[in-house]
Amino acid sequence: MCVDRRAALMQSYLMVKGVLLDVSGVLLDGDTVLPGAAECIERLESAGLPVRFVTNTTRQSKRQLAQHLRSHGIEVEVNGLFAPAAAACAWLKKNGYAPHLLVHPDLEEDFAECLASGPCAVVIGDAAQAFTYDSLNAAFRKLQRGAPFLALARNRTFKDRDGLLSLDAGAFVEALEYASGTKAILFGKPSRDFFLAAVESMGRHADDVVMVGDDVESDVAGALQAGIGAAILVRTGKYRAGDESQVEPPPTAVVASIEEATRLILGMSADGD
Amino acid sequence: MCVDRRAALMQSYLMVKGVLLDVSGVLLDGDTVLPGAAECIERLESAGLPVRFVTNTTRQSKRQLAQHLRSHGIEVEVNGLFAPAAAACAWLKKNGYAPHLLVHPDLEEDFAECLASGPCAVVIGDAAQAFTYDSLNAAFRKLQRGAPFLALARNRTFKDRDGLLSLDAGAFVEALEYASGTKAILFGKPSRDFFLAAVESMGRHADDVVMVGDDVESDVAGALQAGIGAAILVRTGKYRAGDESQVEPPPTAVVASIEEATRLILGMSADGD
Repeated sequence: MCVDRRAALMQSYLMVKGVLLDVSGVLLDGDTVLPGAAECIERLESAGLPVRFVTNTTRQSKRQLAQHLRSHGIEVEVNGLFAPAAAACAWLKKNGYAPHLLVHPDLEEDFAECLASGPCAVVIGDAAQAFTYDSLNAAFRKLQRGAPFLALARNRTFKDRDGLLSLDAGAFVEALEYASGTKAILFGKPSRDFFLAAVESMGRHADDVVMVGDDVESDVAGALQAGIGAAILVRTGKYRAGDESQVEPPPTAVVASIEEATRLILGMSADGD
Repeated sequence: MCVDRRAALMQSYLMVKGVLLDVSGVLLDGDTVLPGAAECIERLESAGLPVRFVTNTTRQSKRQLAQHLRSHGIEVEVNGLFAPAAAACAWLKKNGYAPHLLVHPDLEEDFAECLASGPCAVVIGDAAQAFTYDSLNAAFRKLQRGAPFLALARNRTFKDRDGLLSLDAGAFVEALEYASGTKAILFGKPSRDFFLAAVESMGRHADDVVMVGDDVESDVAGALQAGIGAAILVRTGKYRAGDESQVEPPPTAVVASIEEATRLILGMSADGD
């Protein structure tokens, strides 16, 4: 980011009062932690900024993800971790539906408290190898018979363990929407409700909060559209050159990493760095 | 169809000079032949009307499909059968690409004469159980690296052997388009070129030809948009009540079956029935 733009940005957002962090591609790169990630969170919290983790990753349960972060020195309370399954569960309970799950086997535990029988709603996440013709067709047939359609995310891609981009849940959401004519209800980012639940848990106003992510659609444009004050795109994870020009509104800032994002945020929160 | 509308239709299209027939859902219901299908084709041909078969089915090779039709008493020459693989092969040869196939194993023989190596283009059909996360992800990664994307069809559904609708190729075309940002080139119906190749093989003008199908999008609206004179929707195969009101332009007529369609066409070709 050029100095001028950064300066202008800092002037506009001098009082950041809370931070939302994406996990995969911002703190983690596949299974490994990105340099300085744990220290960045400590610095933000030491500066009095509450931090919440907002992830669309659905290949792990919330418990597994928290454990994984802790194993990398990133202390996270379960209440500070926002993942789409919990929001979908709340919807299912409120509306009296049992989930027909098209999700990764590791995510199933997050639906343990839902109804086991009764009218069903199709719930789709990043099921990975559990996406087969037969599992997709079974979900399609439920939708055809009128089942509601709950999408935990609609991200296009994620950075896979081999360093390349891979298909994320969004592709399969699109496939089922196209064939069934049923529009999915989205529970993860960029759902406004999802962002705002994390913001409210900090006792902050959305426009005093900054979001940091590597997905220019879900994390950046999505956050800004939800009313989040600023959104920083990091050039790690799934970021590819030119991503920042693909969306409207564009990122508030584009930085190299969580470390640079942290420096920028601390400057934004304390009248200059 | 009400008598008035049928009469008006016949008056508008008195001189049908050629017939395009969809196969699956019009002549065949899964593996079985629909009542009177073979006799209908004989009647049309006896009346001097050339008949061509235009199918988006890609779970069988052209050779297998012709054999299957013959086993049900429907005489079809390979030249009279239009399937998308041949059109895609011609494109691949002309443009110097080797196919990366995401198709049903039985369809692979239709690509035997294509290049085996060199720059590749992704070709997708109704791969059925060959649609796995890994096969879709491999195709996605080719598209990401700039491979052209060839879709043999983009139908939403087909009537499966158990009598229910199942996911067709279109859902997976949508999935890959969404994730990769690459728009597919379509080779089957409702591609205009595909319809017109069949029309030209009869030495007819498009507006003297009638199309009969059970897919209101690909067969009916697609044919009319391609300039085919009339399109009859049959209430067999994947037809579901109300389909005719889902598209623009709407079907020229909606009839119970290939038998009723044949009676209507013979009326349209001979100044009254």
